[in-house]
Amino acid sequence: TPLNPLVEATETRLSIQLADGRTVKGTAGVTTPLFVAQSGCCISACSVKGALVSKVNGELWELGRPLEADCELRLLGFDTDEGRRTESSGLMRLLGVAFPGEKDKEEWEREQEEARRRDHRRIGTDQELFFFNDVSPGSCFFLPKGAYIYNTLTDFIKSEYRRRGFNEVVTPTLYSTALWERSGHWEHYSENMFTVTSEGSQTYALKPMNCPAHCLMFEQRVRSWRELPLRWADFGALHRNELSGALGGLTRVRKFCQDDAHIFCTPDQLQDEIVACLDFVRSVYQVFGFSFHCLLSTRPAPFLGEPEDWDNAEQQLEKSLQHFGERWELNPGDGAFYGPKVDIQIKDAIGRQHQCATIQLDFQLPIRFDLQYIGQDGQPHRPVMIHRAVLGSLERMIAILAENFGGKWPLWLSPAQVMVIPVGGNSESYSKQVVQQFCEAGFMVDLNDDQGATLNKKIRSAQLAQYNYIFVVGDKESESGTVNVRCRGGKQLGRRPTEEVLTSLTRLRDTRSNLDEF
Amino acid sequence: TPLNPLVEATETRLSIQLADGRTVKGTAGVTTPLFVAQSGCCISACSVKGALVSKVNGELWELGRPLEADCELRLLGFDTDEGRRTESSGLMRLLGVAFPGEKDKEEWEREQEEARRRDHRRIGTDQELFFFNDVSPGSCFFLPKGAYIYNTLTDFIKSEYRRRGFNEVVTPTLYSTALWERSGHWEHYSENMFTVTSEGSQTYALKPMNCPAHCLMFEQRVRSWRELPLRWADFGALHRNELSGALGGLTRVRKFCQDDAHIFCTPDQLQDEIVACLDFVRSVYQVFGFSFHCLLSTRPAPFLGEPEDWDNAEQQLEKSLQHFGERWELNPGDGAFYGPKVDIQIKDAIGRQHQCATIQLDFQLPIRFDLQYIGQDGQPHRPVMIHRAVLGSLERMIAILAENFGGKWPLWLSPAQVMVIPVGGNSESYSKQVVQQFCEAGFMVDLNDDQGATLNKKIRSAQLAQYNYIFVVGDKESESGTVNVRCRGGKQLGRRPTEEVLTSLTRLRDTRSNLDEF
Repeated sequence: TPLNPLVEATETRLSIQLADGRTVKGTAGVTTPLFVAQSGCCISACSVKGALVSKVNGELWELGRPLEADCELRLLGFDTDEGRRTESSGLMRLLGVAFPGEKDKEEWEREQEEARRRDHRRIGTDQELFFFNDVSPGSCFFLPKGAYIYNTLTDFIKSEYRRRGFNEVVTPTLYSTALWERSGHWEHYSENMFTVTSEGSQTYALKPMNCPAHCLMFEQRVRSWRELPLRWADFGALHRNELSGALGGLTRVRKFCQDDAHIFCTPDQLQDEIVACLDFVRSVYQVFGFSFHCLLSTRPAPFLGEPEDWDNAEQQLEKSLQHFGERWELNPGDGAFYGPKVDIQIKDAIGRQHQCATIQLDFQLPIRFDLQYIGQDGQPHRPVMIHRAVLGSLERMIAILAENFGGKWPLWLSPAQVMVIPVGGNSESYSKQVVQQFCEAGFMVDLNDDQGATLNKKIRSAQLAQYNYIFVVGDKESESGTVNVRCRGGKQLGRRPTEEVLTSLTRLRDTRSNLDEF
Repeated sequence: TPLNPLVEATETRLSIQLADGRTVKGTAGVTTPLFVAQSGCCISACSVKGALVSKVNGELWELGRPLEADCELRLLGFDTDEGRRTESSGLMRLLGVAFPGEKDKEEWEREQEEARRRDHRRIGTDQELFFFNDVSPGSCFFLPKGAYIYNTLTDFIKSEYRRRGFNEVVTPTLYSTALWERSGHWEHYSENMFTVTSEGSQTYALKPMNCPAHCLMFEQRVRSWRELPLRWADFGALHRNELSGALGGLTRVRKFCQDDAHIFCTPDQLQDEIVACLDFVRSVYQVFGFSFHCLLSTRPAPFLGEPEDWDNAEQQLEKSLQHFGERWELNPGDGAFYGPKVDIQIKDAIGRQHQCATIQLDFQLPIRFDLQYIGQDGQPHRPVMIHRAVLGSLERMIAILAENFGGKWPLWLSPAQVMVIPVGGNSESYSKQVVQQFCEAGFMVDLNDDQGATLNKKIRSAQLAQYNYIFVVGDKESESGTVNVRCRGGKQLGRRPTEEVLTSLTRLRDTRSNLDEF
C-alpha cells in the first residue's frame, strides 16, 4: 500500500464482465485476470488451477497483466480447446513464464501447487492466525497467534525507533472534512474515504493516512531549528474504502496499520536522513532474509513546485543512494507530483518481488499547512517532510512473510515456539515446571498432556502445527533437569540441560536468528 | 467509562439554557453545573473561579449535582449579590463542602487553586503531553511525551497479561449493523455510535466496545472445555458519539482505548477467575499507590435470565470477595440487567474517588451469540462471559494519574527522566556519552548544552519540566566516570559512578518504584 494518497488518487474503478454474465469490480492498473481467477469470482467458469490464458475484449492478455479499462474478461484453462491451443502455440507468457513443452507445464503446476501450499490465507486458517468475516469486509480478525506475530513485528520496529531517534505519537481516527480539504485529500481521495456525520451537520472521515495529523502536531507551536529533525511514528489504524471486489486476504484490505513515520527536517539534513532511512530498511530486511534494490523516481510531468528544488532534492537522493552502496536504478519521471521518492523492491525466498518500503519527499504538505521553523538566522524557514515506511502495511507484510517462510516462522516471530510432551506419569509435574520456566522467559510454549494420544502422534501433530521445538520429557529428563529436544524439521538435538536450552533459545530469539539448531 | 453499553444506554440528552440566552447540550445524571461552568460555555456570564451557587429553573442547586432534565441554568458567583447572600446563609454545600466562615472559604479557595494546578489539561499543555483540536472533537492528539506514558501504561498491562494467561487479539473497527443487531447494541446504543455507509447500501458502525467481536472469535470454531478459560484482551480504539457539550479533556472523549478483556469460562471456573481479576486489579493499583474498595452490585429489577443463575453467580462473587480479603460493600439491585458485577472504587492521592476497574458477568451475550463449548461429558454447554478492565479507559486513567501525581510522574511512567547538563567545555563529549548510555538502556534522557544559559537556570528549568533526575557533568565527573545527581525536588545525591547510577535507576524503573532517592 503506497503511503501517499495522491499516488492512488489516479486509480480508476473498473467493471469486468465475466463469461458467466456476472460483473465484478476492479481497479485500473491493479486488478489482473489472475487476481479475478484467484478471488473465486468465476469458480463456475474456470478455476485458477486451470487458468492459463485470458482474453480481454477478445484479445489475448497475460494473466499477470493489470487490466486497464472496463472490459469483458474470459479465462481459459487446460480444460478448454482454446486454452490448450494458445498454450501449445508457445506465444504466451504465463505469470511471466513461457512453457513450450510438457515438462515445463509440470514444473509450472508444481509451482502453482507450492503457491497454494504457501498461500497466506491457508496458513492463516491452518495455524489459527486470523480470519475474515462478512460483518467487516476487508478488516482482519487476528486471533491470539496472529496478534502475537502482529505485535512482535511492531515491537521489532519500535526497538529500531528507539535506536534511531523516532518518537511515537498517538492520533485520532476521525477528522473533519476541513482538515482533508486543507491537506488536499478531499479533492483527490475522498471517494476512498469512509465518512461519518455527527450532530447532524459535521462530516468526519476515517483517516486513510497519518500525514495531516502530524502536520497539525508540527504547527501546534513555534518550532526551532534546534528541534529538527523531528521523527514521528504512528501505528494508528488506517481505513480506505476499497471496493469489496478488490479485497483479498491480507494483501488488499480496508483496515490496516503501517509502520508509518514522518520526518520534518531542514534541507541540510535531508541527505543524512535519507541515508538513515535506507539503513533502517536494510537492517530490517536483513533479518527477514530479503534481498532488495532501490528505485529512484524523479520529477514527473506535471509536477508541483520549483524545478530547482526538484533538481536539488533528486541530487541529494542520488548522493544518498550512492553513499548507501546498495544496488539502485533510476526510474525517470515516476516520482509523485509532490516530490521525488525512493521505492525499495524486495525479493522473497520464492523469488517474488514486492514493494513495501518507501521514502517519499513532500514539498507540498509543508506549503499547504504553512509549516515553518525558526532557523539559526532567526528567520522562518520551510521544513522538508519525508514520508517513510519500512514494513509498509503490517497486514500485507504478514501475508508476505507467511508465504516467504511457508508458515515456518523463525523462532522470534513464531506464535508456536515450544511444545512440551511428557511421557510417563512421573514427568508431569516436571513438564509443567518446564512450561512455566519458558513461559516466564516470554516464550510461546504449550503442553500436550493428552492421555489419549501416542508419543509419536503428539510429535507429529506438533511438527504439523509448526512448533519450532518439541521437548520430550520422561523420567530420565525429570531426574536430570534436562529436556530431549527435536527441531521442527525432525532433527533430534538430544537430551540437554533445561537451563542451557533456555539460554540458547533466548539468544536465538533475541538476536532474531533464522537458525534452527543450537 | 463503563465497559458495557447497556449501562449507558439509559443516558438521556439535555438542553441547558444559560443566562446569556445560549443553549448547551448535556447528559442527564452526568452533566453538572460545575462542568458547564468549567467547560467555558458561560465565560461571559460567570467564570468557574467565582461560581459558587447554581439555580436550576429558579431553585438552588449544588454545583456538583448532576442535572436531571432540560432546564434553565444560572451560575452565581461572589461577584453577584445573590451568590454572596446564598453563601453567607450557610445553607449551601459546594462541591460537597459547606463553609460557614471566612477561614473555610480560604481553604476552599486554596483547594480550588490546587485543583487548577493539578488539572490534567494544564499538565498536558505544560509538559507537552497532548492537545485537542477542533478538527477532531473529543479525540486526543498524544505528543511524543504523552504517547510515552500511553505506551508505558499499555506495556505494564501487557506484562501482567503474560503472567496471568491473557492473550491479545486485534479486531476490526467497523462492523455492519447486522452484528450490532445481533448483540443488542443497535437497539440500546445506536444513537451513541458513529455510522458509515459503503458501496451505497451497507451501513457499518465504529465499535463502541469489543465484546461482539470477541463473541465472533469464540464461535469461529467448535470450542472444547480443554481450551477454557479463554482470556482475550483487546487494545482496539473505541468510538462513542458523545455530544460535543459533554466533552472535557481526557475524562470525557469520543475516541478512547481500554485495557479491555473478555474471559470465557465454565461456571466451575468462575470463582477462580473473579479472584484472579481482583488480584490483577490490586497489583496494578498498588503500583499507583491507590487505595480501593469493591462494590458488589446484585440483581436489579427488571433483569434477564433465571433467578437461580443470578443467585448462584452472586454467591460466587461474594465468596470471591471474601476470599480476596479486601474491603467490600453490597450494592443491592445495582447490577446490570444482564448480570451482577463488581465495581472497584479507587481513592487517589488527593482523596478523590474514581471508578475505573470493573468486573461484570454477562449471561446474555453468550445466549445472543449462542456460544457453546463441548464439555467433558461430550455435550454442548453455555460458557460464562466476564467483561473486565483494570485501568478502564487509558485516556481517563492518564487524566487521573496526571492529577494524582500533580504532574510529578514516578520514574517508570515519566516521559522526562534524566536531564544531563555539561559544565565547562571539556565535559561535552563525556556528557554525550552519558546521554547515549542512558538512552541505550531505554531511558528518556535529554541534554541541555545550550551555551546561552547559566547552570542555575538550566537546573531550574529542568526541575520545572519535572525531570526526575538532573545530572551535572563537569571536568571532575568527566575524569572519574561519575555524574553529580540531583532529584527533581532539589535534593542533591552528590557525585556517583555513572554505572552505579544506571544500575540503580534501571532497578527503580523496572520495579515501578515510587521512590526518588537511591
